[in-house]
Amino acid sequence: MNFKKILTIGIDKSALDSAYWQRIEASAEKIINLAKNSSEIKDELADADCLLTGFGVIVDKEVIDSAPNLKYVGVLATAYGKVDIAYAKGKGISVCNIPGYATGAVAEFVFAVILDHIRDIERGRKQAKEGNYSEAGFSAIEIKNKVFGILGLGRIGSRVAEIALGFGADVCYWNIERIKEFEAKGVKYENADSLIPKCDFLSLHFAQVKDTENFLNEERIMKIKKGAIVINTAPMELVDIDALEKRLEKGDITFILDHSDEMSQEDIKKLSKFKNCIIYPPIAYVTREARIGKQEIFVGNIENFLKGSPTNQVN
Amino acid sequence: MNFKKILTIGIDKSALDSAYWQRIEASAEKIINLAKNSSEIKDELADADCLLTGFGVIVDKEVIDSAPNLKYVGVLATAYGKVDIAYAKGKGISVCNIPGYATGAVAEFVFAVILDHIRDIERGRKQAKEGNYSEAGFSAIEIKNKVFGILGLGRIGSRVAEIALGFGADVCYWNIERIKEFEAKGVKYENADSLIPKCDFLSLHFAQVKDTENFLNEERIMKIKKGAIVINTAPMELVDIDALEKRLEKGDITFILDHSDEMSQEDIKKLSKFKNCIIYPPIAYVTREARIGKQEIFVGNIENFLKGSPTNQVN
Repeated sequence: MNFKKILTIGIDKSALDSAYWQRIEASAEKIINLAKNSSEIKDELADADCLLTGFGVIVDKEVIDSAPNLKYVGVLATAYGKVDIAYAKGKGISVCNIPGYATGAVAEFVFAVILDHIRDIERGRKQAKEGNYSEAGFSAIEIKNKVFGILGLGRIGSRVAEIALGFGADVCYWNIERIKEFEAKGVKYENADSLIPKCDFLSLHFAQVKDTENFLNEERIMKIKKGAIVINTAPMELVDIDALEKRLEKGDITFILDHSDEMSQEDIKKLSKFKNCIIYPPIAYVTREARIGKQEIFVGNIENFLKGSPTNQVN
Repeated sequence: MNFKKILTIGIDKSALDSAYWQRIEASAEKIINLAKNSSEIKDELADADCLLTGFGVIVDKEVIDSAPNLKYVGVLATAYGKVDIAYAKGKGISVCNIPGYATGAVAEFVFAVILDHIRDIERGRKQAKEGNYSEAGFSAIEIKNKVFGILGLGRIGSRVAEIALGFGADVCYWNIERIKEFEAKGVKYENADSLIPKCDFLSLHFAQVKDTENFLNEERIMKIKKGAIVINTAPMELVDIDALEKRLEKGDITFILDHSDEMSQEDIKKLSKFKNCIIYPPIAYVTREARIGKQEIFVGNIENFLKGSPTNQVN
C-alpha cells in the first residue's frame, strides 16, 4: 500500500538528504511541499492522507478536521506537543515522532559548552593565534569531584549521567520515577529542591509538558548555588525567564542554553544582555550521526506504517 | 631540622600562593630567589643546601658540583628530565618532583579541545552573539562509538581512558606495560602500529624519555587515519615536527597541542601556519585544583624531607 498524497509542511528541502526524499516520494503517488505559513495548507490538506511536519508545526483539531482522509502524521522531531494526538487518535490517525536520534549529540554538547566555559578555550586559542603562549591569567576548574545535577533522567539525561560519571563527578538526579539501574552505577537520587542548591553543574533534561513548564521557577532559581553553571539544552519553557533575569543580574551563576525557535525575541533579548548567560544557536542536536539517525527513523516510520507495523507511534 | 639556605631558580613569585611561600620560608634560615638566567646562580649555589627549580631548569653535573652542600632538589613540575638524578644520587642528593597534580586538569582539557573543535563551539557562540540563531551550516561528529586511541596509559592516559569510556567511545591503548585493570573495564590493548591507523581520536600521554622521543615518527604520522584528530598535551618531543608538517600539508588530519616552553620558536612557526593545527598556550594543566595540588605536594615534599621521610623522591 502507498499513500495517495503526502503533504509536507515546514520541512526544508535541505532537512533531508536526497536519498531520503526519494524514499518518501516512493511512498506516495503525489507529494506536495509547503512552507509553515503557506496560505495553501488548508486546500492541500483536503485530499492528503499523509501529513509530514517539521518541528513546531501546529496540528490541532482544525488542521485535522481539514484533512478528512488523513491516516498518518509524521513529525520530524522528538517533540510532538503541537499535535493534538488524542484528537488524531479518535479519528484513526497515527502520529509518529522520531525519538532518541539526538541523544548522543545533545549529551555531548552539554560537556562541550561546559568545558569551553570552564577552560576558557576560546581565549586560549585566540591568544595563541596572536603568538602569545603565556598561561598567565588563565584559571579553570575541573568537573571531577564536583556535584553534577541532572533534572530529568530520560534518554539524554541518562547519557549525560554516564559521561559525568566518566569525568568522576558526584552525579545526582531527580526524575519523576526513580531509575534504580542508574543508582546502581553510583548516580544518586535526590529531591529536586534539595538537589538544586548543592549543584556545581546543573543540566536540564525534562521533556516540555505541563508539569515541567516553569519548573525552574523563581524560588528554585534563587536557590541555585553561587558559582554554579546551569545548562539548558531542553526547551526554555522549563525556566521562568523573568526570575532567571533577576538571578543573572546578581552575576553569581552562569546559564548556558541553546536557543530554540520557540523562544520569543523578547526573551532572547532579555537574556542576551548578560555576560553570564551564554547562548548558542540550536546546535546541540546537530551532528552527522544525529542527522542520519533522524532521517532513518523518520522515513522508516512512514515505510513501517505502510507495511502495517507502525514504529514510534505516540497515540 | 631546617635548611640553612634555600635557593630557588626560575620560580615566579606568582607560581605559589603566599601561604605556601611562608611554609617554604619556615623551612630554612635564608631563602634566595633567582631567575632562570641569573648570573648569580653559581655564586648562590656555593652554600645552598636546598635547591628548588621551576619547570625546565637544568640541574646537570656542573650545577650539582657548584653546590657542595646540596642535600635536596625540589622540582616544581612532574617532568624532571633536566635534572641529572643519577649524578645527584651519587652525591647523596634527593631529587623530588610533583607527580599527578595535574592528572585531572590535563585529561579534562583533552576533551575540552576535542569537543570545542568537533562541535564548532566558538563559531556557534559568536554567531549567536551577532543575533543569528540559525543552525544552518553547522555539522559535527560525536565521540560515541568512535575509536579513541591512547598512547601511554599512565596517570593522565588512564583518566582520559575513563572519560572516553563515559562518552561511549571504543577505547584502545598502547603502553609499554599492559594494564589489565583497564582492560577489564573494556579498554583494548593494541600494538601502537596497528592502533594508530584506526583511531578517530588519538591522544598522546607518554612521558618524555629517550624511547618516546620522536615516537610519532614519519612512518607513524603518515599512517594516521584520514580525518583523525590527534591531541598532544604531552611534550612535542614525542613528535617528528617535520613529518607532522608534511602530513598537515595534506589537510586530512587535525592536530591539537598545548604549546610548552620547550618548543622552539621555529617549530611553533612551522605548525602555526596550518589551519588544521590548533595550538593552545600551555593551559592543559591550569586548573584551580591542580594549582592547589601542585603547591601542596611541592611544599609537602620539602617538609617531609626535613622530617626524614621524603616523598616523591625520584632517585
